[in-house]
Amino acid sequence: MTRQIRLALRAYGVGGPGQHSLWKDPRVPKNASIDIDWYIAQAKAAEHAKFDALFIVDSQFIDATYPPHYLNRLEPLTLLSAVAVHTRHIGLVGTLSSTYNSPFNVARRFASLDHISRGRAGWNVVTSFDTGTSRNYGLDEHLDYATRYGRALEHVTVVRGLWDSYEDDAFPADVARDVFLDPAKLHPLHHEGEHFKVAGPLNISRSPQGQPVIFQAGVSEEGRNLAAHVAEGIYAPGGTLESTRDYYADIKRRTAALGRDPDHILIFLGAQPVIAGTDAEAHRLSREIFDADNDFPRKLAAFGRAFGAYDFSQHDLDAPFPDVAAHAERSGRTRGTEIVRRAREDGLTLRETVLAFTEYRPSPFTGDPRTVADTIESWFGAGAFDGLNLGFRTHEDLDRFIADVVPLLQARGRFRTEYESDTLRGNLGLPVPQNRWTRAEALR
Amino acid sequence: MTRQIRLALRAYGVGGPGQHSLWKDPRVPKNASIDIDWYIAQAKAAEHAKFDALFIVDSQFIDATYPPHYLNRLEPLTLLSAVAVHTRHIGLVGTLSSTYNSPFNVARRFASLDHISRGRAGWNVVTSFDTGTSRNYGLDEHLDYATRYGRALEHVTVVRGLWDSYEDDAFPADVARDVFLDPAKLHPLHHEGEHFKVAGPLNISRSPQGQPVIFQAGVSEEGRNLAAHVAEGIYAPGGTLESTRDYYADIKRRTAALGRDPDHILIFLGAQPVIAGTDAEAHRLSREIFDADNDFPRKLAAFGRAFGAYDFSQHDLDAPFPDVAAHAERSGRTRGTEIVRRAREDGLTLRETVLAFTEYRPSPFTGDPRTVADTIESWFGAGAFDGLNLGFRTHEDLDRFIADVVPLLQARGRFRTEYESDTLRGNLGLPVPQNRWTRAEALR
Repeated sequence: MTRQIRLALRAYGVGGPGQHSLWKDPRVPKNASIDIDWYIAQAKAAEHAKFDALFIVDSQFIDATYPPHYLNRLEPLTLLSAVAVHTRHIGLVGTLSSTYNSPFNVARRFASLDHISRGRAGWNVVTSFDTGTSRNYGLDEHLDYATRYGRALEHVTVVRGLWDSYEDDAFPADVARDVFLDPAKLHPLHHEGEHFKVAGPLNISRSPQGQPVIFQAGVSEEGRNLAAHVAEGIYAPGGTLESTRDYYADIKRRTAALGRDPDHILIFLGAQPVIAGTDAEAHRLSREIFDADNDFPRKLAAFGRAFGAYDFSQHDLDAPFPDVAAHAERSGRTRGTEIVRRAREDGLTLRETVLAFTEYRPSPFTGDPRTVADTIESWFGAGAFDGLNLGFRTHEDLDRFIADVVPLLQARGRFRTEYESDTLRGNLGLPVPQNRWTRAEALR
Repeated sequence: MTRQIRLALRAYGVGGPGQHSLWKDPRVPKNASIDIDWYIAQAKAAEHAKFDALFIVDSQFIDATYPPHYLNRLEPLTLLSAVAVHTRHIGLVGTLSSTYNSPFNVARRFASLDHISRGRAGWNVVTSFDTGTSRNYGLDEHLDYATRYGRALEHVTVVRGLWDSYEDDAFPADVARDVFLDPAKLHPLHHEGEHFKVAGPLNISRSPQGQPVIFQAGVSEEGRNLAAHVAEGIYAPGGTLESTRDYYADIKRRTAALGRDPDHILIFLGAQPVIAGTDAEAHRLSREIFDADNDFPRKLAAFGRAFGAYDFSQHDLDAPFPDVAAHAERSGRTRGTEIVRRAREDGLTLRETVLAFTEYRPSPFTGDPRTVADTIESWFGAGAFDGLNLGFRTHEDLDRFIADVVPLLQARGRFRTEYESDTLRGNLGLPVPQNRWTRAEALR
């Protein structure tokens, strides 16, 4: 069979329509971000089109002085649980920070979602990097970089251990023998590590997928290593064909080097297609959207994200780029360090730096439906991704992609016309992990 | 209008049917506790009958050696979120421990449920008292008694503060003025207390009820004080008419002494009605159920709960009652201390003590439908409760109560025939708390 492209929908409305000019669009309800019907409608549309998953991003901090407000959002697990009982096939991937949630709570909430959705849960593991978030959890400063990733790896390890608390046949519910639970099939974890100490067992049986699917979005050196160790899906940043192919090859190589099958880590490239009747029209539209969303104050605020939501408005825009290297380093993002280096090398002012790093770059998936389908197919063929993590501005934009682009991919044998399975693992072609205790027993 | 009785349904199946003999009943699915359809069906039945709320208990610890296993349960918030989108009127009250969940996460998860349910969320605040649970959260021993309650009070205070992060009109979304969020209506919390330090604001707008409804279940001195300070609903333990009236009067008195309106704290008495064609038949059935669920090992294990899930099977049953006073005290439950005192005074063996404290006591709500309705009405009239928190063994038992008892209460004007409101506050007759910042502004 031709190798197939995976499609995920990054839900829109998530952070509140206030984060860009979209809230002024009369087609978008002002309260879309907290209206569960809005998400259920998106999930149903994506499921009707046979998408692999709905993906919910998250952030735990808002600041009224920060123009692209990440505000007024539903909590991802309650959101996805509501979507679960109005859908049957589409995967449900929620973002949850390993920095401020205990492994026991994370394990049980995702296991619960996996039971409620009957095998469609995925966890997008993130680490929280900003001081604003840490102040909501009793800390003055966020955890440093190495601590955050070491802790994240141990966190996921504990969660997975807890998900194996029960073997698949732990609950015979055998009336004749008077055995509801077979205690020999229940396994406490007794984890004692550098960051966590968790006894277990979990208080919920093994879920339909064995374990929910682990997603991650590592870009830095540590992030890529974490991904190679634990991720089964990756949300990769967009870029040029060259940069995305490099990223793809690097992740697959690191994964294989750890003895894992590189086919069991699927890379979803972030993509925001802009589709119109002609290529020229699509490019005009794309530029128009960019300009509407990117007046200078918004650019300045968005720019600050690479420095841990640093507020650059306190500096003179026309003075040399300020000394924020420490913020860049602490943020744990490679982008900040790159910006600092270039600003110094080129002797740029703050304004020049902001403009250089927030210049208009159209999505490679801009054009008429055929151009978009062609580009998707050629990038996929060139090894830039296994799937796309698609973002749209409105429901109409999603509908247009579904109506006009998906059939082209299907006609070329690049996208499914029916779901292969009722579980996310089944549809992604990922194996169900055997319970570690059952495996240990089999090896004995 | 005649004062009305409130009815809540304590969902069954919650802890797994393995916790008593029920799993052998062919009418009960073996996986009922993790089957979301089972809960949705209960909620719909209770909503059809105009019940005030569905109530989900929780525990975060299981032990395979502990016969009445509290095992294999869905996490309450994911469960209720799924129920929310298949119901329209019934309140949704979930249990969440203040001991092992940060205030920021609790606040946003319940605010999210309140948005998803469009105003029907309630939080049953519990403190976790057993060593088994603490070991799932990185601690060797649970927090001591005073710390737990002091921390709980501060926790709820912080959560409520976060729920007031936005005034009701904080999001004008005014296109003409280009104002999505009015920053003057957003209020960080800047809380710095003994146990928590939380900056805020929350990342979700004020929810339809203003604040989700706070429930509690305090029995000890500290528990009753916590309830009087923060609770709007109380889950009270069953007992004799005298003991329940005393409890009721005590809570109302404490609440009034704090300057709160005692009508704004509703006491729900735990009740497990047993209904049959005749009183005699109901009492026979009640005894039969008790005997099936209470062989001696189960009694012994259940008995250990009053001592923080202490395992009494390690002691000689026929030796004098062991020295477990420290466990009783640490558990934070008054019952353990009472047991220790009586065992000493009467010079009882362990076996005699267990039997004395686990003797058969039929529910006062046992009988034919008229007897049960009469008893409910007379206890209500005598000031034993504002509402009942009803538990049933099977869906048939719930159906029978709805078909045969509810109409009698309605005919006597003691229970609603239509919902008064779409929100839990509205149906319970509880006021919507005014946002503290709006109030402060009005007073200025």
